[in-house]
Amino acid sequence: MLTFLDALKRILVGRPEITGRVRFAPLRRRVALPTLASNALSSVAYAPDEILLTLALAGLAAIHLAPWVGVAVMAVMAVLILSYRLSIRAYPSGRGDYQIASENLGPRAGVVVGSALLVDLTLTVAVSVSAAAHYLSAAVPVLAGHEGWVAGVGVALLVVLNLRGLGRGSLARSLPTVLFVVAVGVLLIVGGLLALTGQLGLAPSATAPLAPAPAYPDGIEGLAGFVLVLRAFSTGSAALTGIEAPISGVSTLAAPRAKNAGWVLAWIGVIATILTLGVLFLASATGVRLAAEPESQLAAAAEAADLTAASQTPLLAQLAQAVFGPGVPVIVLSLVTILVLLSAGMMSFLTFPKLAFYLASDGYLPRQLRTRGDRLGYSNGILLLGAAALVLVLATGAGLAALIQLYVVGVFVSFTLSQAGMVRHWGRLLRGTAGRSLRAALHRKRALSFAGFTLSALVLIVVFATKFAHGAWFAVAGIVVLTLGMLGIRQHYDEVDRELAIDESTSVSALPSRVQAIVLVSTLRKPLLRAVAFARATRPQVLEAVMVDSDPEKTARTVTQWERLGLPVPLTVLASPYRDLAGPLLEHIRQSRADRPRDLVVVYIPEYVVGRWWEQLVHNQTGLRLRTRLHFEPGVVVASVPWQLASTGHGLQHPASTPAPADPGHPAA
Amino acid sequence: MLTFLDALKRILVGRPEITGRVRFAPLRRRVALPTLASNALSSVAYAPDEILLTLALAGLAAIHLAPWVGVAVMAVMAVLILSYRLSIRAYPSGRGDYQIASENLGPRAGVVVGSALLVDLTLTVAVSVSAAAHYLSAAVPVLAGHEGWVAGVGVALLVVLNLRGLGRGSLARSLPTVLFVVAVGVLLIVGGLLALTGQLGLAPSATAPLAPAPAYPDGIEGLAGFVLVLRAFSTGSAALTGIEAPISGVSTLAAPRAKNAGWVLAWIGVIATILTLGVLFLASATGVRLAAEPESQLAAAAEAADLTAASQTPLLAQLAQAVFGPGVPVIVLSLVTILVLLSAGMMSFLTFPKLAFYLASDGYLPRQLRTRGDRLGYSNGILLLGAAALVLVLATGAGLAALIQLYVVGVFVSFTLSQAGMVRHWGRLLRGTAGRSLRAALHRKRALSFAGFTLSALVLIVVFATKFAHGAWFAVAGIVVLTLGMLGIRQHYDEVDRELAIDESTSVSALPSRVQAIVLVSTLRKPLLRAVAFARATRPQVLEAVMVDSDPEKTARTVTQWERLGLPVPLTVLASPYRDLAGPLLEHIRQSRADRPRDLVVVYIPEYVVGRWWEQLVHNQTGLRLRTRLHFEPGVVVASVPWQLASTGHGLQHPASTPAPADPGHPAA
Repeated sequence: MLTFLDALKRILVGRPEITGRVRFAPLRRRVALPTLASNALSSVAYAPDEILLTLALAGLAAIHLAPWVGVAVMAVMAVLILSYRLSIRAYPSGRGDYQIASENLGPRAGVVVGSALLVDLTLTVAVSVSAAAHYLSAAVPVLAGHEGWVAGVGVALLVVLNLRGLGRGSLARSLPTVLFVVAVGVLLIVGGLLALTGQLGLAPSATAPLAPAPAYPDGIEGLAGFVLVLRAFSTGSAALTGIEAPISGVSTLAAPRAKNAGWVLAWIGVIATILTLGVLFLASATGVRLAAEPESQLAAAAEAADLTAASQTPLLAQLAQAVFGPGVPVIVLSLVTILVLLSAGMMSFLTFPKLAFYLASDGYLPRQLRTRGDRLGYSNGILLLGAAALVLVLATGAGLAALIQLYVVGVFVSFTLSQAGMVRHWGRLLRGTAGRSLRAALHRKRALSFAGFTLSALVLIVVFATKFAHGAWFAVAGIVVLTLGMLGIRQHYDEVDRELAIDESTSVSALPSRVQAIVLVSTLRKPLLRAVAFARATRPQVLEAVMVDSDPEKTARTVTQWERLGLPVPLTVLASPYRDLAGPLLEHIRQSRADRPRDLVVVYIPEYVVGRWWEQLVHNQTGLRLRTRLHFEPGVVVASVPWQLASTGHGLQHPASTPAPADPGHPAA
Repeated sequence: MLTFLDALKRILVGRPEITGRVRFAPLRRRVALPTLASNALSSVAYAPDEILLTLALAGLAAIHLAPWVGVAVMAVMAVLILSYRLSIRAYPSGRGDYQIASENLGPRAGVVVGSALLVDLTLTVAVSVSAAAHYLSAAVPVLAGHEGWVAGVGVALLVVLNLRGLGRGSLARSLPTVLFVVAVGVLLIVGGLLALTGQLGLAPSATAPLAPAPAYPDGIEGLAGFVLVLRAFSTGSAALTGIEAPISGVSTLAAPRAKNAGWVLAWIGVIATILTLGVLFLASATGVRLAAEPESQLAAAAEAADLTAASQTPLLAQLAQAVFGPGVPVIVLSLVTILVLLSAGMMSFLTFPKLAFYLASDGYLPRQLRTRGDRLGYSNGILLLGAAALVLVLATGAGLAALIQLYVVGVFVSFTLSQAGMVRHWGRLLRGTAGRSLRAALHRKRALSFAGFTLSALVLIVVFATKFAHGAWFAVAGIVVLTLGMLGIRQHYDEVDRELAIDESTSVSALPSRVQAIVLVSTLRKPLLRAVAFARATRPQVLEAVMVDSDPEKTARTVTQWERLGLPVPLTVLASPYRDLAGPLLEHIRQSRADRPRDLVVVYIPEYVVGRWWEQLVHNQTGLRLRTRLHFEPGVVVASVPWQLASTGHGLQHPASTPAPADPGHPAA
């Protein structure tokens, strides 16, 4: 079994690499921009859709608000980016918000930020791959209705790529973003020119008679309408995720790192704003109508079925059709969009394991997350992220509408706490600074961070208020559980550290006074003789063979055979009226140790090692279960004496597997 | 985790019992009859239904053949019972058909019979519990449509009862059968009297305008109709399962065992025949119409929905309603029927583990199936049967129509082979017998066994021909896979026996020449010091500490600390460019043993023992994985040195857990 799994692993993962072998050159800022922008820019492929879908619940009148909701989202982005540029200069280590919150607000705040980011990175993968699956199924109709499985395959693909360490080069990471920006740019320019000359066509869904959903009988009027606009805003805030990428990626940049990262961040903001607003205005100009609940909203239309399909087609695909007509451009744009979405997923697969590594290094996550795999990626982090994202896309059937409700909670928890941390940071610097102009600069910085904090806290409240009941509670629960889990793990590690640390009182030369060896007898065959021989070779002060009598007939047979063989070791038989193996043995060991508590007891257990997996099933797993029980007993060492059966490929033919004749000078135990 | 599971087990299973404590008094034959008859008689609750359902596929004209199909089934039963009475006298050991086939036709035939019976016992549980679920949901309409889950709960209930060892007493086993026979007897007598006086009412489904199913446009005419009658016959043969119960239960009877078992078998035949034929004739008299495919067969009826429900109600419930009218009698009969069906399931839970025990004793199944559980049942066999039956009822949704197609294949394979074995048996006796009248008697017996063999082979062919494509292939595949698996297991055990047997050439006093101890170093904390102390206490000829360098920084830190502590053991650092732990260690061990192949290498691995299950997850499982790799290496013993963390409840507070100060006279290694 081992060999089969090993072979499978080699095929999927490739040959192992030597530690420290793979190094990437520092990124110049023009390369860094597309490399770090994929997450932030790829949201152009789904955030405008979600704004339109949410507003459409209130009917036709509402969707004209979409561009203005977009403007509000971009305004928040502008403030956050300005404030983040300060954060990057102050914390250019690459540990990002986790470090800022830990150092300024205490380690617990840091753990909350860590949990929030882990949850959001997982959702980035789920959302990006699900969106990619929808673009793919819009282009390849036979896949429609199976988006969940398509997305599942996508996640698996990302896991394998990352375990192999592929797609980490700057070309592979930057090309999809460049292509996407160029493609959407061309779309917007051509669309804009056509609009100016009055030749812009309508989108396929433009004729849909969009009625308000039953929950919004008054359309956009009244309190319900107002809350819906807020909800569209908080859903559209998905466009803001990814702007934290430059602060975690700062360590990969060329010097001057912080300055370059600030430049990258600014350009991400500019490009994201142009693309998002451009798409929203073009959607308005071509009359795109997306229906969140087609059954009720399109019921009035005669050709409801066709319109339902049209109103579910992703926005960029509809725009491409309106601008270029059906054909090649639509397919090219869809492909490029799929690429950039997968690229955003790839980025999460780099960031999540790195964050998990930092958290594990600080003792908040299991140490296994620090291990580098065969290809030098943090394999356990990659597998963990892949598993979580896979569960999400399969459970929702790649349901973007559902996933988007869970999204951005984490990112805004992290923004809010990190901006609060920055306010503290500047305050602390202020207390230690004297010069007037220096103090004025710090005051300005603190004011900007405070603005960022206030705004992100406000958005967080809006997000909570409008999305909690729609699914955000699940993300919140995830963050809470992760936070508590991490604090618990840290506490456990701290306890273990205290318990196991070597201090002055620890004696390094203390030894047990005597060694008592016990050979466990079950069937009298060669492996048992080997166990007896090995136990004798260690020359313990006391050596006995012990048999637990769970089957009187077999016990009698074994005792007779033992005497006939003339083994130079006394055989003790322990009664076991309840046919239990471990109980009587533990009782026996405790009795021996009660007399001499400083003795060391070594229990030798003969074990069969088989070569084929099914052979394992037909041998009693007594040894394994017994070892688990004995491990709880202080002062007892369990020594497994393996016997390699012929099927392992070792075994009898090996010269060393049978013990040599006794050294005549050896004292028998 | 252990303690929680232990507590759960105690609640479900109860306190353990002492070996040999529970003994049952031998059964007098009047008690044995109902005790052993539950399986054979309970088929009255579903076999007539299945005959009617199958014939109904050809429309109204066909169902009048049902009583005559019943007569044919009962004729086969009569011959088989006569022949089985001979088998019981010849083989009164309780090992039944498995022994008859093994001894007369060779062990492979025995294994085929064993597999076939295991498959059929599993199906008995699945069919009986599913039928019970249908009677229950006919009485409690809220359960309708959830029969699969109801049956699943039923299987789980039987498993728990059997693990606890409940329901094994003669009263619990015989009462359901007595009640059932009385209830059906009253139904038939009252129904017969009403029919004679012309007052018998019609069944609720009597007005259903049963059309032939689309596959049978010509009704019962032609070849298709003939095959359908054969299929009704082979489906109705489900009534024949259970007549092998007395031959496996013979050991529980009072003396003269074989004679009493023969008496029991004869009466089972008489009662089964009366009940089955009585039910079929009464069904004919009350005009019961069951529809296998209600959508197509009842489409013509205006009140199709009502009739669909009526035509799906179990036959006995319909008869009770026709004879007594709706009300208490129907409910009483349903309850009694459910009881007898569960009782038949219980009997399989006694027979299956016993047969598995015999097969495991002969080395055809894993030895774990020989272990008696806390309450003296063969728990592993009980769990195995429960799991298989659970899968069947859940996968088919307690679909009787599907399960019945898999049924009786196994029982007729077993009948055929065991009757063939008996023919051989009598032939062998004939060759050693001289007296004329004795020889004539043997000739008569051989003729009877031959008739039994011919008939069951014929039925087996009919079953194959009519049911194979409908699902019997699955049962056949199960039997083939089980047979091959058992032969493979036996071959493996034989090989291991040969490999491990102690013979003249085995030296019992051979010892390895020297002991090399290696302490595996990962983190320098107290558990490592304990491992070093324990290794030193065994005073090996060579002792070294080995650290695999997978993280250079940590290695350097450990080496410094090692030197500062002044540990009297040399520390070897092994390079590991691929961050692999086992590889470099194995290489190092092989090099040391290459020089001195007769040395014994003992590898001491410090292990943390934690008290809470989740703590296990946050510690590297390096020790476990390493032990698995080292077990494949000849001449290497792996000694785990456990350290019980405080959370286990042992640990530091225990006086014996820290080694005592060194004995000054001790030689350091």
